[in-house]
Amino acid sequence: MACSVELLCVGNELLVGRTVNTNATWLARKITSLGGSVQRVTTVGDDVREIQEAARGILARKPDLLLTSGGLGPTFDDTTIKGLCRAVRLPLEVNTEALNQIRARYKKILPSRHCMLTRFRTKMATFPIGAKPLLNPVGTAPGMALQVRKTLIVCLPGVPRELRAIFSRHVASMIRLKAGMDRYISRTIHVQRFFESELAPLINRVMKRYPEVYIKSHPQGGEGRANSRIELDFSFSGRDVAEGRRIVSHAIAQMKHLLISKARMTK
Amino acid sequence: MACSVELLCVGNELLVGRTVNTNATWLARKITSLGGSVQRVTTVGDDVREIQEAARGILARKPDLLLTSGGLGPTFDDTTIKGLCRAVRLPLEVNTEALNQIRARYKKILPSRHCMLTRFRTKMATFPIGAKPLLNPVGTAPGMALQVRKTLIVCLPGVPRELRAIFSRHVASMIRLKAGMDRYISRTIHVQRFFESELAPLINRVMKRYPEVYIKSHPQGGEGRANSRIELDFSFSGRDVAEGRRIVSHAIAQMKHLLISKARMTK
Repeated sequence: MACSVELLCVGNELLVGRTVNTNATWLARKITSLGGSVQRVTTVGDDVREIQEAARGILARKPDLLLTSGGLGPTFDDTTIKGLCRAVRLPLEVNTEALNQIRARYKKILPSRHCMLTRFRTKMATFPIGAKPLLNPVGTAPGMALQVRKTLIVCLPGVPRELRAIFSRHVASMIRLKAGMDRYISRTIHVQRFFESELAPLINRVMKRYPEVYIKSHPQGGEGRANSRIELDFSFSGRDVAEGRRIVSHAIAQMKHLLISKARMTK
Repeated sequence: MACSVELLCVGNELLVGRTVNTNATWLARKITSLGGSVQRVTTVGDDVREIQEAARGILARKPDLLLTSGGLGPTFDDTTIKGLCRAVRLPLEVNTEALNQIRARYKKILPSRHCMLTRFRTKMATFPIGAKPLLNPVGTAPGMALQVRKTLIVCLPGVPRELRAIFSRHVASMIRLKAGMDRYISRTIHVQRFFESELAPLINRVMKRYPEVYIKSHPQGGEGRANSRIELDFSFSGRDVAEGRRIVSHAIAQMKHLLISKARMTK
């Protein structure tokens, strides 16, 4: 059991550097903590053809889940659904359930005479045939779920608060179920006064002894003995969390031992 | 003239949500301001096959520039160069110029008896045949440039300070040259007490009148008249910056006019 995930983030603001893609980070962290595994993140602009091509590439790799963010709103350049529809060759239709959700939302937040379902509002309920709307508890545009062969496609709005609410309500439990008992745990130690090139052989030695543990180095700050600082992450993926923690502890202990020996040697 | 760019970001830390991909944002902003155009950002883990497949897909789209970030260091899972080599089917070799740069760097920061060129250090100088190292003024791993048919591939380290230094020193001028006189300008106005679905038709009207201007709405905060806030970006890409600024001003003036009329109507 496992749950492979790809993210498709849509928005010109991400490609011109206006906005930091914190949605991708938030989703990746959540998915990982639920036992899922993000394989790739693809970011494209608000362009039907770009979305279509990116989605086609992702679907060809057959992840369990394709999560999109952004491009569900009422403006002309909110084209995620259109691009996906072209990728999966399904026609668009106004989804009655989604339209009811949108109508209810506007009734709640607008005086009655202003809650007409204009074509811009109806657009947010226009989904491929067979899609299921996901209620947006904090905004107007519903999310969308659509199974295409092996892959469940889920579309989330780009507004972080709405993306998080729909994910937590509709997607999290699905990932947990699909991922089964797989869990990801990690611990970090901070290493000072070493270069990454000195740690590299030590990492190899510890990983050879504890092959279930993945050790990744993250250099921080500048080089030079005095101010060098490297974060070493020890991570474990698997069912037996208690066993994972135990192995990670042993790996950290061995690494610390090697670091102390090495430091003595280079003095 | 134009300069199309794709980014390939490498690192498990990005796929587990440990690290926010600020490198992508920084690069996108810089590239845009230099007149280049980022078409897509792809993020993959520290996996040779993933890097290879992603690079192959990017090269098939023939961007002018493929910029990679991360995976150039000395550890076992720094595999960006290896993945790229497989994608372009070029053999690896130890690059003498890169090796000299690394040797000089360690000579500068280490006492002489510790600056042996171990295989972990030599690894950082192992490039595809024909590649050119890009001096890293603030770190050890050099960047790398390699022309493959229409696309210039440039590899940058993942440490932000090093990525920025190598980009500014070696890549920025190249983008400016390739992009010619193209420039990107944008202005933002803040709209309160409107819904995005109300702005959508106004955006269409203004863009119909000023087709050179791209208007993008970014909803902020919650919905409901009281606390809704939308940022409206007006952007222009082209050679004539003065003309661009003038058109953007006109488009903003028309939008403000439409907003005032609409606000009066809905009172």
